[in-house]
Amino acid sequence: MWPDSLAVVGLGALGASLAWRARVVGVPRVMGFSASPATAVQAIRAGALTDRGLTPADTVRGAGLVVLAGTPAEVIALIPVVAPHLAPGATLTDLAGAKSKVLAAMRDAGLAARYAGLHPLVSPVEQGFAGARADLFRGAITYVTADMEGEPARQAMRAFVSTVLEGEPVVIDADTHDRQVAWTLELPRAAARAVALALANAGLRGAAFDAAVRSATASARDAGDDWDARVLANPEAVAAALEALKAELARMQGAIQRGDADLLREMNRAAEVLARGVAR
Amino acid sequence: MWPDSLAVVGLGALGASLAWRARVVGVPRVMGFSASPATAVQAIRAGALTDRGLTPADTVRGAGLVVLAGTPAEVIALIPVVAPHLAPGATLTDLAGAKSKVLAAMRDAGLAARYAGLHPLVSPVEQGFAGARADLFRGAITYVTADMEGEPARQAMRAFVSTVLEGEPVVIDADTHDRQVAWTLELPRAAARAVALALANAGLRGAAFDAAVRSATASARDAGDDWDARVLANPEAVAAALEALKAELARMQGAIQRGDADLLREMNRAAEVLARGVAR
Repeated sequence: MWPDSLAVVGLGALGASLAWRARVVGVPRVMGFSASPATAVQAIRAGALTDRGLTPADTVRGAGLVVLAGTPAEVIALIPVVAPHLAPGATLTDLAGAKSKVLAAMRDAGLAARYAGLHPLVSPVEQGFAGARADLFRGAITYVTADMEGEPARQAMRAFVSTVLEGEPVVIDADTHDRQVAWTLELPRAAARAVALALANAGLRGAAFDAAVRSATASARDAGDDWDARVLANPEAVAAALEALKAELARMQGAIQRGDADLLREMNRAAEVLARGVAR
Repeated sequence: MWPDSLAVVGLGALGASLAWRARVVGVPRVMGFSASPATAVQAIRAGALTDRGLTPADTVRGAGLVVLAGTPAEVIALIPVVAPHLAPGATLTDLAGAKSKVLAAMRDAGLAARYAGLHPLVSPVEQGFAGARADLFRGAITYVTADMEGEPARQAMRAFVSTVLEGEPVVIDADTHDRQVAWTLELPRAAARAVALALANAGLRGAAFDAAVRSATASARDAGDDWDARVLANPEAVAAALEALKAELARMQGAIQRGDADLLREMNRAAEVLARGVAR
C-alpha cells in the first residue's frame, strides 16, 4: 500500500511535512524539489528527503507516488511539466485548497484516472520549510477528491491518508469540496480581512480595541497562508459566500436603521447558536 | 472624593460589580435596586450592597452618586423616574455602551451639569449578578463622557474611575465615543454575527470547520452581551461602519471575480498589518 518511491514537488510546510512523514514510516526513496535549492538541501539534512531533483521533471522520474505541493495555480502549471516524465503506474496527488480547477487540468492532461487530490485541514505554525513537521497531518481532516475515472487513485490516497499520514480522510467530489470550503474556510478568512481593512481605513489612531477585534481579525494575521491564491482558484463559490455575508450585513444594517429590535434580537440569538456549535 | 452614599439602579454584572467595589473600598452606604428582588437580596448577602430600595426612586434618595446600570434604552427610561428624587448635590453616571442618546436625555431632564457617563471596556464572564466581581474594572479602559456643562461631574467620575475602580479613565466627548466604539467594538461583533448567520443559512450539515471559523464567530457566542441594545442606541455610526465593511467585501469580491491577484495580495497584506497590530 505504501509507495516504494515518492516524489514531492514543492517543499513548503505541507509538501515537506508529507515527505518527512513518508521517511519516518520507512518509504525507501523520497525525492524532493524546491525552487530554492537551499531548501531542498535543508530538507535532506533534516531527514525529510533521501535526495533532491534538479528540476520537477527530474524529481518525479521513477516515483510510484507524485505529490504536487503548492497553490492551485502552481499545481496546475506543474502538471504539463511533469506529465511526460511520470513512471507508467504512478499515482498523482496534490495538496492545494481548491480542487475543481486542478482536477480539470489533470483531465486535460489525460491524467484523471491516476489522480486523487488531498486537502488536509492543517495550519502550520510557520510557512515554508520552517513549518514542516513529520506529524503535521496526524488527526487532521483530509479531503480526498477525484472524479469517477480516478476511483482507484482515490482508494489508494484514502489509505495513504489513514495509514501513512494518520489523518482522517473525508472522500468528497471536487465541486462539492470547493463549494463547501468557500463557506467553511474562505468565508471566515475573507471576513477577518474585510474587518481589518475597514478598521485600517477608519483612521482610529489611539483607539482602544478589545478581544472582539482580536478574534474577528485573527485569521488575517498570516497573509502568507495562500488565502488569496485559493480564492482565486475557487472564484464562483467564494463570491457567492461573500454575497451571502453582505446580505446578512445589509439585513442587520436595515434592522438597526429601522430600530427593529425584534429582528436584531432574533439575528443575535440565531448567530449565538451557530457560534456555540462551532466552538465545541 | 469618594461618595458617602452611593445608589446603583440595575444589578447586572456591571452595576453589581461597581456597588461591590464601592463596599470594598469602604463607602458606608451602598443602596441597590434590581427588577428582581431576589437579585438584590443575593447582592446584600454577598456584601455588594448595604441595603436595597423597593423602587428606583426609593433607591436614589439621599445618594451622593447615582449609577444607572443597564442598556442605553433602560438608562434613558430611568432618567425621568429618578430625576425628581435626586439629592440636591448628587452626581449621576451610567454604564451603558452608547452615550450620545443618554447625554441628550440627561440634557432634556435638566441634569447635564450633574452627569458624566462611564463606559468600561470589560467582558464579565457571565451576564447578570453571577458575573459581578469587585475587581471587574481594575485596569480596564473606561471612557468618561459628558458635555461642557458636565465638566465638574466629569472630573469627579474620572477620579472615581482611577481611585475607586482602579480603571484607566479616557475622557472623550459622547459623539466621538459613539463613532469610535461603532468601529472598535460593534463592527467586529456585527461581523461575527453576520458570519455565523451566513454559515447557519448555508446548510453545511456535517461540514468540518477550522480555527478560522471559531475565531471569526467568537464574539457572537454570547447573545446576552447587549450588543443589539447598544447598536440600536448608536444607529448612524454603526450603520456607517457596516457600510464600510460591505464595501471592503464588495472590493474583495470584485477582485476575486476579475482574477485581480495584485489587488487581492495588496488587501491581504494591508489586513495583516492591522490584524497583527491589534493582536499585541
